[in-house]
Amino acid sequence: MRVDHDELLVPAKGKGTYEITNEVQEKIDKSGVRNGTVTIFVRHTSCSLTLMENAAPAARRDLERFFEKLVPEDADYEHDDEGSDDSTSHIRMVLTRTSETIPIVDGKMQLGTWQGIFLFEHRRASHRRRIQLTIMGE
Amino acid sequence: MRVDHDELLVPAKGKGTYEITNEVQEKIDKSGVRNGTVTIFVRHTSCSLTLMENAAPAARRDLERFFEKLVPEDADYEHDDEGSDDSTSHIRMVLTRTSETIPIVDGKMQLGTWQGIFLFEHRRASHRRRIQLTIMGE
Amino acid sequence: MRVDHDELLVPAKGKGTYEITNEVQEKIDKSGVRNGTVTIFVRHTSCSLTLMENAAPAARRDLERFFEKLVPEDADYEHDDEGSDDSTSHIRMVLTRTSETIPIVDGKMQLGTWQGIFLFEHRRASHRRRIQLTIMGE
Repeated sequence: MRVDHDELLVPAKGKGTYEITNEVQEKIDKSGVRNGTVTIFVRHTSCSLTLMENAAPAARRDLERFFEKLVPEDADYEHDDEGSDDSTSHIRMVLTRTSETIPIVDGKMQLGTWQGIFLFEHRRASHRRRIQLTIMGE
Repeated sequence: MRVDHDELLVPAKGKGTYEITNEVQEKIDKSGVRNGTVTIFVRHTSCSLTLMENAAPAARRDLERFFEKLVPEDADYEHDDEGSDDSTSHIRMVLTRTSETIPIVDGKMQLGTWQGIFLFEHRRASHRRRIQLTIMGE
Repeated sequence: MRVDHDELLVPAKGKGTYEITNEVQEKIDKSGVRNGTVTIFVRHTSCSLTLMENAAPAARRDLERFFEKLVPEDADYEHDDEGSDDSTSHIRMVLTRTSETIPIVDGKMQLGTWQGIFLFEHRRASHRRRIQLTIMGE
C-alpha cells in the first residue's frame, strides 16, 4: 500500500462544467496504482466538483440553468465584495461537492457508463483551478 | 493494510429511498477488515446516495416530497430523451451524493444511532443499481 | 501505511456554522501522519459538514439565510416529532455533506487559502456533536 499525491490545474473560462475524467485517469495511469482509491479534492470555495451524465450536453445545460434559478445572482446577499457572483458561488459550492473518492480496480476508475467527473465553476471570470489528487492503494 | 473491493446490486422499484446499511456491514464482516474505512460509490447518474434518519419513515417521505418540489418533473427541461424524469434525476443526483467514506472501528461502521445508508432512486422505472464498495484497512 | 481513529466533540449552540479546521489539524499533528488523507465523518442526521469561505462571516450568514428560505421550518412536514426544526434538519443535512476526505501532504491538510471546515448545525437546541476522524497514511 502506498500514497501518491498529484495535482490538476484546470483552466476554467467562467461559469459552467468542465470535464476532467481523462485527466484524472491519466494521473492514475502515471502512478501505477492498480487497486485502491483516488480522492479528488477541489481547493476552492467558489467552484466545486460533480459527477454528471457525460454524453448529453443538454443535461449539463439543464443543470447549469437549475442552479442559476435556485441560487440567483440578483437575490439580496450581504456578501458581495467580489461582485454579484460572490455569495452565489459559495452557496452553489456547498450544495454540490468538494471531495469525491472513487474506487480503482485493475488500474481503472470504476465509473459507470455515463459518469463523467466535472469541475463546476461558479465564477464569471476565468480562473486556473487547483485540484488535489490522492491515489491510495497498491 | 489492504484493499478489498466488492459490489452491491440494489433492486430499486422506482423513485424512493432504499436502505442498504445492513448489506454494507455484511460486506465489511466478510472482508474481515477491523480498522479502516469503507467507500461507498454509486455507479450511476440518475440515482444517488444519502445518509438519513432511519427510524421514522415519515422523515423520508418529507425528504422525497421536498425533492419533488425542488426539482419538479414538469419544469421546462431541454434534456428529456428518457422521459420527464430525465433531467430531474441528474439534478437530484448532483444535489445529493455519489460517494461516502465511513470509518470502520473494531469491524463496525461508526454510524450514529439514527444514521442509515440509503440508495436514493430518482427514476420512475425499476432498475438494478450497482454500488461499488472499497474496504481499506487492516 | 497505518490507520488512526480519533474523535472531535463540538459544542453547537443552536443553528449555525462552527469552524473546526484547527481542531482537525491538531488531531493530524498528534497522529504523526505526514502523507495520506483524513476522513471527517459526522455521526448525526440533523447536522452536517461543509467546507466554506472562512474569512468573511457575511458569506456564512448568506449561506445560513439561504437554507432558511430553501428548507423553511414553517412548510408542511409530516415528521415533526421533535419540533418544527425536525424534517428541515434532515433535509438540510442531505443537501450538504456527511463525510469529506482531505489530502494530507507534509503533515498539513491541503486546503485552499480560503477553505475552512465547518460543522453545520441545523437544530435550534444546543447539542454536543460527535465527529469521527480517520487518518490514513504514513
